Amino acid sequence: MNDGQRARRPGGRSARVGAEVHQAVTDLISERGYGNFTVGEVAARAGVADSSIYRRWGSLETLLTDVALTRLNTRSPMPDTGSLAGDLRTYAAQVAREITGPEGLAVVRLAVALSSTGQQGQQARDDLLAERTRQLQSMLDRAGERGERAPDALEVLDHIMAPMYIRVLLGVGRLTPEYVDGLVDRLL
Amino acid sequence: MNDGQRARRPGGRSARVGAEVHQAVTDLISERGYGNFTVGEVAARAGVADSSIYRRWGSLETLLTDVALTRLNTRSPMPDTGSLAGDLRTYAAQVAREITGPEGLAVVRLAVALSSTGQQGQQARDDLLAERTRQLQSMLDRAGERGERAPDALEVLDHIMAPMYIRVLLGVGRLTPEYVDGLVDRLL
Repeated sequence: MNDGQRARRPGGRSARVGAEVHQAVTDLISERGYGNFTVGEVAARAGVADSSIYRRWGSLETLLTDVALTRLNTRSPMPDTGSLAGDLRTYAAQVAREITGPEGLAVVRLAVALSSTGQQGQQARDDLLAERTRQLQSMLDRAGERGERAPDALEVLDHIMAPMYIRVLLGVGRLTPEYVDGLVDRLL
Repeated sequence: MNDGQRARRPGGRSARVGAEVHQAVTDLISERGYGNFTVGEVAARAGVADSSIYRRWGSLETLLTDVALTRLNTRSPMPDTGSLAGDLRTYAAQVAREITGPEGLAVVRLAVALSSTGQQGQQARDDLLAERTRQLQSMLDRAGERGERAPDALEVLDHIMAPMYIRVLLGVGRLTPEYVDGLVDRLL
């Protein structure tokens, strides 16, 4: 069996190692916070060699963003409701629920942590953002194809995501459904 | 000389200790980041007793927000230009310059750090925000007294501050003068 076959088999060793490493990262973030553990500690907890992690992810920063992206894609997938207003309202409501939940501002904490770790951290942060922006852009493109007038992705970031993140970060205001829908309506 | 007189004398011992403690905090933040030093280490560097710091500030969290607030009030004082558009444009430009400068997102890092340190940290964060909101509200009230229609302070946070902070945090877009003025115009 070659590497290509192994990578494609969902229940295979590669998938198991991936899941164990992701779990180890999630646990270490929750116990110690970003910036307070090493690749060696992730490897020890997951029961794999350091070299397996470096071979697959390249760096701790890339591993951290892979874990965050997997989580985002699972918990806040980009919706496809058939209308732009529906998509944006659904997406905004998911984000509001997520950032006011027990994991809170995990993504903001990650971005702050990565911004402090030099070039490699910033690259990992940029890659994460680029992937989510690509997904958001697909949603906006679908609206355009339906003949709806769509904002650009940066406007969605500026006027829907940013206010929600800052409110939670600073502990002011509340993300009521009316408020979240209002952000979408105001932008559209 | 009683305490009241001492506190009012700008060049007095109390002011000197305050300045030395603030400088020690600023240095430790820059060397180690938030969450990675203690009151004892601040005291040692400032050449004062731990008890002096606890007596004056009560906790590390309160001291950290006092340093941040002093800095904010010095570098981004609330402007009074005679018009709401002028005030908001000046203020937004100050914030943009500050958060894209060498200290970058010091306030966001502080808010993230305080949010992670339990009740006392959240209280300190809330006090810092309440003081800046009070200043912003004065600016908005002046506009109201002149007969201008002013947004509320949370709207300024949501649609002027939040987009700038998030862009810097995520490293996307640029805070050009046109963009910053555009945030103000859009809100007004």
